[in-house]
Amino acid sequence: MASSMDALFRPRSIAVVGASRHRGSVSGEIFHNLISAGFQGPVFPVNPKAAVVQSVRAYPSLVAIPDPVDLAVLVVPKGEVPHAIDDCVAKGVKGVVVISAGFGETGPAGKAVQDEMVRKIRAAGIRMVGPNCLGLVNTEGNFSVNASFAPTWPPAGHVGMSSQSGALGLAILDYAQEIGIGISQFVSVGNKADVSSNDLLEFWENEENTRVILLYMENFGNPQRFMQIARRVTRKKPIVAVKSGRTEAGARAASSHTGSLAGLDIAVDAVLGQAGVLRTDTLEELFDVAMLLANQPVPAGKRVGVLTNAGGPGIMASDACESRGLVLPPLSAETETALREFLPAEASVKNPVDMIASASAASYERALKLMLADEKIDSVLVIFVPPIVTEASEVASAIRRAGAGATKPVLTCFLGKHGVPAALSSMREGKFPSYAFPESAAIALSRAVRYGEWQKRPEGVVPVLADVQPERARKVIATQAAAGNADPHGRWLDAEHVREVLAAYGINMPRTVFAATGEEAARAASEIGYPVALKLASSTITHKSDVGGVMLDLTDAKSVAAGFSLMRSRLEERGLAAQMDGVIVQQMIKGGIETFIGVTHDPTFGPLLGFGIGGVNVEVWKDVVFRVHPLTDVDAGEMLEQIRGRKLLEGYRGAPPADRAALIDALLRVSRLVDDLPEICELDINPLVARGPGQGVVAVDARIRIKA
Amino acid sequence: MASSMDALFRPRSIAVVGASRHRGSVSGEIFHNLISAGFQGPVFPVNPKAAVVQSVRAYPSLVAIPDPVDLAVLVVPKGEVPHAIDDCVAKGVKGVVVISAGFGETGPAGKAVQDEMVRKIRAAGIRMVGPNCLGLVNTEGNFSVNASFAPTWPPAGHVGMSSQSGALGLAILDYAQEIGIGISQFVSVGNKADVSSNDLLEFWENEENTRVILLYMENFGNPQRFMQIARRVTRKKPIVAVKSGRTEAGARAASSHTGSLAGLDIAVDAVLGQAGVLRTDTLEELFDVAMLLANQPVPAGKRVGVLTNAGGPGIMASDACESRGLVLPPLSAETETALREFLPAEASVKNPVDMIASASAASYERALKLMLADEKIDSVLVIFVPPIVTEASEVASAIRRAGAGATKPVLTCFLGKHGVPAALSSMREGKFPSYAFPESAAIALSRAVRYGEWQKRPEGVVPVLADVQPERARKVIATQAAAGNADPHGRWLDAEHVREVLAAYGINMPRTVFAATGEEAARAASEIGYPVALKLASSTITHKSDVGGVMLDLTDAKSVAAGFSLMRSRLEERGLAAQMDGVIVQQMIKGGIETFIGVTHDPTFGPLLGFGIGGVNVEVWKDVVFRVHPLTDVDAGEMLEQIRGRKLLEGYRGAPPADRAALIDALLRVSRLVDDLPEICELDINPLVARGPGQGVVAVDARIRIKA
Repeated sequence: MASSMDALFRPRSIAVVGASRHRGSVSGEIFHNLISAGFQGPVFPVNPKAAVVQSVRAYPSLVAIPDPVDLAVLVVPKGEVPHAIDDCVAKGVKGVVVISAGFGETGPAGKAVQDEMVRKIRAAGIRMVGPNCLGLVNTEGNFSVNASFAPTWPPAGHVGMSSQSGALGLAILDYAQEIGIGISQFVSVGNKADVSSNDLLEFWENEENTRVILLYMENFGNPQRFMQIARRVTRKKPIVAVKSGRTEAGARAASSHTGSLAGLDIAVDAVLGQAGVLRTDTLEELFDVAMLLANQPVPAGKRVGVLTNAGGPGIMASDACESRGLVLPPLSAETETALREFLPAEASVKNPVDMIASASAASYERALKLMLADEKIDSVLVIFVPPIVTEASEVASAIRRAGAGATKPVLTCFLGKHGVPAALSSMREGKFPSYAFPESAAIALSRAVRYGEWQKRPEGVVPVLADVQPERARKVIATQAAAGNADPHGRWLDAEHVREVLAAYGINMPRTVFAATGEEAARAASEIGYPVALKLASSTITHKSDVGGVMLDLTDAKSVAAGFSLMRSRLEERGLAAQMDGVIVQQMIKGGIETFIGVTHDPTFGPLLGFGIGGVNVEVWKDVVFRVHPLTDVDAGEMLEQIRGRKLLEGYRGAPPADRAALIDALLRVSRLVDDLPEICELDINPLVARGPGQGVVAVDARIRIKA
Repeated sequence: MASSMDALFRPRSIAVVGASRHRGSVSGEIFHNLISAGFQGPVFPVNPKAAVVQSVRAYPSLVAIPDPVDLAVLVVPKGEVPHAIDDCVAKGVKGVVVISAGFGETGPAGKAVQDEMVRKIRAAGIRMVGPNCLGLVNTEGNFSVNASFAPTWPPAGHVGMSSQSGALGLAILDYAQEIGIGISQFVSVGNKADVSSNDLLEFWENEENTRVILLYMENFGNPQRFMQIARRVTRKKPIVAVKSGRTEAGARAASSHTGSLAGLDIAVDAVLGQAGVLRTDTLEELFDVAMLLANQPVPAGKRVGVLTNAGGPGIMASDACESRGLVLPPLSAETETALREFLPAEASVKNPVDMIASASAASYERALKLMLADEKIDSVLVIFVPPIVTEASEVASAIRRAGAGATKPVLTCFLGKHGVPAALSSMREGKFPSYAFPESAAIALSRAVRYGEWQKRPEGVVPVLADVQPERARKVIATQAAAGNADPHGRWLDAEHVREVLAAYGINMPRTVFAATGEEAARAASEIGYPVALKLASSTITHKSDVGGVMLDLTDAKSVAAGFSLMRSRLEERGLAAQMDGVIVQQMIKGGIETFIGVTHDPTFGPLLGFGIGGVNVEVWKDVVFRVHPLTDVDAGEMLEQIRGRKLLEGYRGAPPADRAALIDALLRVSRLVDDLPEICELDINPLVARGPGQGVVAVDARIRIKA
């Protein structure tokens, strides 16, 4: 199917505006690269000062070219770019790559010029890459386009890559060539004024030749759209991403639990995770995964067989696999017997299979075939340490023969880089990935396994919650937002309003009554029924228990009245008496498991939902998982699985298990709530007490902050 | 000073027993390597079937050699090795390297032969490497010894390495050559029958030419001796180790908290950590650190300056540094001003300093000098992405000039491996380490910083505890061990005996009285004073609270009696009534912070001490740090710092801070206890309640298991 990206990747003719006669300059290199890459159509240099550029007849302007031009590459000083864009429109080009810098990245003035360029090209139906980029590359035989100034021309292959850093792009193409990663298309997206990585994802989604998509990202233009697209694309093919800027300074000040628990990078992790994108920490790991996924089948599971000719590396590989969540199961008895038939007595036929140093290429071939046929194994990692007796190249060929056509991935590790033979180097591209160290192989494999699990994971749905009453909640928010008395950080809702908003979304709190005096409190307690809890009512003090503002399990009127006095005197001691509006008398909730649900606001991604084990020590343990909204039922279920304290939900040490269904339901209701009510910038339900199965959850305490 | 290792590394003459005429065989390669490495003395081939070996006159036996032989390398079939050892003794050699395999590694019979060999060489004052090894290498000019069959001869340098895997040894020498790591000595220690890595550590300790020691270990021969030696050596020079076998199957079944919290690998981490050894996960990281520490000064602190010519890699480097515990502080105002003087307006003079793509080699030199002179910076990471305008080799030379003689480490990253110029490759050995990716540089640097901190850390002392009463505790253990009734896993002491043992070491428990009936319990409670806690007394049920066997805060005789009945009926419901011996009535301890101290037994390392936040959820949070004994005061103090829940000890949310001195004291007392009483194989004090500063700690509950 035709894509608007075709104008960029598959032009019939190309012009380089600003092409220099001199190699070594950016525009000279781009022109040279374009005419050297095997492109089938004509490449026209545009240069008002030269009749010939690098032995090719030149034209003084784009419009002076007598033939049609599909793609224009602009490498002119920034001041000349707008005029060149006008020429592109006039000439009827379909794609533009703007290498020139000095636009959106420099500030508002540059941004204005860039916006005007975008307006023009969009009106003319032109797609634009850049400005401020390194260019693009397409390695397809018929359309070999190297519209970049990269000194390296990567091998053709199945990896599509988008990079937000031009400088890294150079290094990336270089590294890809070195380790033999085949590239289908590469784009340096620069300022992403028109073409973004989202557009490229949609392009590669339908490109059969592209099997793996790599992204280097520094920020998200439109995270919602990214998530929507990536979630769809990852069902078909893997996306592997490095997102930098993880520890950027400038953390938001946040007063609540959830805010301080969410690191800057949590939202990025949540978005990528919920979209099924594999995130790696480093570029090296990015390519390690790509090398595997571009050339080998996705593993069906996490069971690895290790085949080696030396014990030490076998142990290291086992360590690396198991510490990354993979397992080394025993092989089937048949496989062990068959291995025993031809391996020496000193060899170990148990996983990891150690054929010892005398192993020949033929042993590798036979053993690998047997292991690939074993139903207890989902993938095989083959390690070779070159001893004197066996040639690495023979072993490489044996692995290639044994692995050919297998439905399980085979990874290799020829330990010590000098030992990697030519036979393997050539295989790498087309067939079997090779790593210098077993750990790199294990890390790449564990990511591929995770991708396989993602593909099998049910997509999940964002459920329709018929019983929620958005209008009821909106009314509260509207009144409160209008009530003034808000500081610049927004306004915390009163307890009664919090209760009303949560009730509108079907999240119940225990019976509570506000009381201004000890007498009123005792009366309220008798109405509610004992035991009760007393909680400080204050619009200014957020952590009540820190100031002695929580009293639990009061069993009669006398203790309620005494509790009220005690709380007041504690606040007086601290000089906080004026901030005590009164108390909330609350039905005492005993037993159950304390969890929490929180919402914090990320400036780029919007609301972030957190879930974890609750209670006063929530900030000590920081046991919380985050997701962006909207949550699907599957997302919510996974949140329960992923907290460290999950044992507590399972009925720990004699306690009944938590009502999982009710917890998931509560998470989905909060997700809907923040979706409906964008005014809410912070929300904490802590503790949300989960009772036994079928008995539901109770929001024992909750706070909501709305925007100023 | 002379070392017995000199016989191995610095012989005046060498014989190869079993030297083959044929290259391509192990013994042929060893002989070839020895005569090709530039060794100044004679190398004699011993071969009863050949008069000449590889153009050198051969001898039928070791004793037939007319000249003295210092070092003999044995490469004969295993059956001939004992006889060859006899010859070595007869000939008066000083060192032997036994390449031949088939000894201790094959089982008891082989072990017996090996032991006999060791007896003989020790009686004769000979040092032996192996058997079952790859050999050894010394690169010193005067003693160039390559007594190995490694195909690669590593460059001479300052890294000493011991490898327990011969196969990995081959790969290691290969890799060292590829990345330009200079080796001083390399030893494949094989079965470590005589020479162990401990011996090598002591050798390298006093070798000025060896600046960094690398270890690849699969197990510890004598962990106590290792710790003692390594702790001393790391004060002088860094030891970096890979210890494999991390996830080995066969975890011990352990019923207590501490046992199940301690992973298999925890003891190794503890030993290496307490000895100041830097542990890396992979061989690649091992060499990354070695490259830095062998060539650059140890960083004085964690403040890194990053200098780059491209934004993306600068961000990635900052991420990598900060996520590894390093910091990128602002530069001093003077440095920023001085940078601004010659950098273009678009450059960023703030850390990370981005000189943008136009940066010349001269800019690199000037900027690096300024950054190295800045007092706010402890090290500089220089990143270069090769643009078209600047040659990488010129930049490399500029870095070398600017960094020469600096007292702060300089690391470089020439992004994209092909981009690393020859000028840098040569520098690597002698001067500035280079990494392909900024992350690798950051990881290596963070380890070097950790090493610097270790060197500055006070050594600490194991305090003399004058008031402990080992005899009092030993008496209890002796009676109980003799009392029979133990199962194969050992025997849990009764509550009263636990109390007695802890009291002997100055660790106090609250007042407790055993009661067999509800009436007795009420009487005991009145004696102790209210409130009290009731705890199940049972020699078989270990987790009391799981079966309703703990009742807290009982305030009068009536509730004590009722509590007793309730506990009994709960056990009856579970069919456990017969296992209830009675109850322990205990003074109720309120307030304070619940911590725990535990001891578990590691088969190799002996007692492992754990400390963490206590309470019933200790296994959920797994917040525990481990150390091997004996603990120094500094070790104990660090344990408090290193738990995740350390906030709780600092006076969290209004609570008073914990009595740190008392916690440290309790840890040191438990360390002394397990040192004195090796019969104790498991101990749990949980909770150990820490009260406010000066108020001490109370062991509210404790269990001790002694060996069967």
